[in-house]
Amino acid sequence: MERILVKNILCNGVPKDILIEGNIISRIENNIDMSDFEGEGLLKLIDGTKKAVIPGLINMHTHSAMTLMRGVNEDSQLQEWLAMIWKIEPRLDEEMIYWGTKLACLEMLKTGTTCFNDQYWMIDTAVKAIAEMGLRSLNPYVILDLHDKEKAANLKVECEKIFKLSQNWSDLNRFAIAIHAPYSVSAESMKWASNFAREHNLLVHMHLSETQQENIDSINQHGMTPVRYCEKLGILGPEMIAAHCVWIDDEDIKILADNDVKLVHNVNSNLKLASGYNFKYKKFHDAGLTVCLGTDGCASSNNLDMLEAMKTTALLQKGINYDPAAMPLDQLMDCATANGAKALGLNTGKIEVGALADLCIIDIDSYAFTPNINFLANLIYSANSSCVETVICNGKIIMEKRKVATEAEILENVNRLYKKLIN
Amino acid sequence: MERILVKNILCNGVPKDILIEGNIISRIENNIDMSDFEGEGLLKLIDGTKKAVIPGLINMHTHSAMTLMRGVNEDSQLQEWLAMIWKIEPRLDEEMIYWGTKLACLEMLKTGTTCFNDQYWMIDTAVKAIAEMGLRSLNPYVILDLHDKEKAANLKVECEKIFKLSQNWSDLNRFAIAIHAPYSVSAESMKWASNFAREHNLLVHMHLSETQQENIDSINQHGMTPVRYCEKLGILGPEMIAAHCVWIDDEDIKILADNDVKLVHNVNSNLKLASGYNFKYKKFHDAGLTVCLGTDGCASSNNLDMLEAMKTTALLQKGINYDPAAMPLDQLMDCATANGAKALGLNTGKIEVGALADLCIIDIDSYAFTPNINFLANLIYSANSSCVETVICNGKIIMEKRKVATEAEILENVNRLYKKLIN
Repeated sequence: MERILVKNILCNGVPKDILIEGNIISRIENNIDMSDFEGEGLLKLIDGTKKAVIPGLINMHTHSAMTLMRGVNEDSQLQEWLAMIWKIEPRLDEEMIYWGTKLACLEMLKTGTTCFNDQYWMIDTAVKAIAEMGLRSLNPYVILDLHDKEKAANLKVECEKIFKLSQNWSDLNRFAIAIHAPYSVSAESMKWASNFAREHNLLVHMHLSETQQENIDSINQHGMTPVRYCEKLGILGPEMIAAHCVWIDDEDIKILADNDVKLVHNVNSNLKLASGYNFKYKKFHDAGLTVCLGTDGCASSNNLDMLEAMKTTALLQKGINYDPAAMPLDQLMDCATANGAKALGLNTGKIEVGALADLCIIDIDSYAFTPNINFLANLIYSANSSCVETVICNGKIIMEKRKVATEAEILENVNRLYKKLIN
Repeated sequence: MERILVKNILCNGVPKDILIEGNIISRIENNIDMSDFEGEGLLKLIDGTKKAVIPGLINMHTHSAMTLMRGVNEDSQLQEWLAMIWKIEPRLDEEMIYWGTKLACLEMLKTGTTCFNDQYWMIDTAVKAIAEMGLRSLNPYVILDLHDKEKAANLKVECEKIFKLSQNWSDLNRFAIAIHAPYSVSAESMKWASNFAREHNLLVHMHLSETQQENIDSINQHGMTPVRYCEKLGILGPEMIAAHCVWIDDEDIKILADNDVKLVHNVNSNLKLASGYNFKYKKFHDAGLTVCLGTDGCASSNNLDMLEAMKTTALLQKGINYDPAAMPLDQLMDCATANGAKALGLNTGKIEVGALADLCIIDIDSYAFTPNINFLANLIYSANSSCVETVICNGKIIMEKRKVATEAEILENVNRLYKKLIN
């Protein structure tokens, strides 16, 4: 069994030794004696002096291969932006998905994310890239029929095919179902997708109430909000992970809470695309809802940096609610770690004995952590993600001292491929 | 004369060679031949391959020694936060101001700022620290009499004394006057300060309309908004640099524009302290007002990172105005560079022949700039300030490849001193 021993690292403000055995955090103690492991095989030692440990961050909504479109259309209206994306996306091939996904994984490692929910196309290829990079992921197959019956029929066949392929994926990468959005998928396909997921015990991901227009259209078409429409179709439940949820009223909140739907706030994307800024965090939290954070894809919000997402989330909640005590640091940290783990049903998102060994080692020997009166405040409000020094996922070191073995190769391939995409 | 030649660097999207002679950018050309300078003394050569150049950023509102209080009071209401700051501040001594200011300068270098407006106490000591670090600054002497006549009299004497001392400061660090705020300074002292500044051709800095309460109190006390009250006192003019300006109506905007007052938006501080989120950028810009950006001090918004301030500013403007085209990249860049230079009356904030050589070299060989379809979008929305590799201020290299000579010494001294401050 492989072992990693991290000596003398700040863990919740106290210096500790942390032992990882296999893919599990097996001991957290004041002093773990290295001689305990004599003759017991490989022991990798990490000096944690002037470092702190945090759980690997969990990005609960992104479209990773869209890193290839980073900065493709800036400062333009939503329709113009969408037109550009729709022009580009059909040009994506498997090679682009592979390298675009690798670029996303590289960026996530550099910014402290060990686990993500990746909704995009060609998921079997994406999973190959993610597995090679060593991250944990959810990879939903996207149902997007645009109310076209032939397309819907083909999607079902394809979905079942990829589901079978997914049996060969590693334990780190899990298949799921995505219903693109209530406006872009027929009621029949939504119900089919939901049933398929329940039958096979799969999670379901969906864009929900992202824009005001979506709500207006839903009320015009169905006489009710998107949340109530989804409830009527019977597709809401604890397996549902709903992204955005910016246009939500009190009755919607009750429905979401009654169905234990998990919510994902994508603050930078919502602000940058001007979809809506009033994510009702406190009401959701008070209703007992599990709130997670996501970055969305790089075509809309340019990076996959969860520390930035955390900072913007907190600043906006404090600002728009005229309450500097809104969104306290511990809740913010939960949104980016434990809550995502809960939504995914994984024993991760925390530094605890018995939890999966998904963690980041933070370099605190810098101006950003000086003075270090409040570590979480420094991490989220003062530092940036360059403080992430080493990343361990599932017990494996996948970034050490900011080095990722395949970095140059990834940048080179993306620089070769993106021109084909945008020209 | 000292010369720096930067070869083959991206300058506004095109590879150029840039020559710095003394403290001035003297040539920007496709190919500057090194043999031109044979036998002409020192020529420092910088390879600009896979790098880009931007003007040094200008932070137009901060309180630099407050880096010592980074994270001292989080997630609490404004009154509790203020009580903590007021408890701590009287403990500040010259040694703390010196090292706190150095820590701020270190952070500004690491995040690409070459020039800042620093409103705090013991400014002669602060300027000593800033001069040693090599940054450009405005250092206003703060008039804050709390409507106490004896205090007011003492401040005037002290102000004149420091003004005389400031004659010995280097050209990079300029004396100015700060009127703390219209609510905290007597009308008589405000008028005295304004006259003193006009007499000696000095800039004036002031907190203005930061909170709704300030506006309510002003209307109750003076029958008018703080802006109208300042106009009535005759203290508004092109020399006035007003920080915050969050609670401003249309009539105020007209007055500010008529008087060519320069505005400083401090987005992170305004959000984090919940002072107000609706900075009316578009209205200010349309009225012809010069809008600059600032970070405020680290006690309120935790860091001095102007790239972060730019990003949050743009996201918030787009989000709250439901307009993804609000705050375009070029205007955002101006707010953080050229507009600050204009407010300070300095020929900097731009990469142009004849301008002061204040610039940052950005490393674009990273995931954050891949692909590099839109450099400014990558700089502001995708990267973080760790992309700032080398900083040149007034023709001197003051950070090279992220190394600042005195870094370890600064961190060590701050770690020794801050405990005296908070215990």
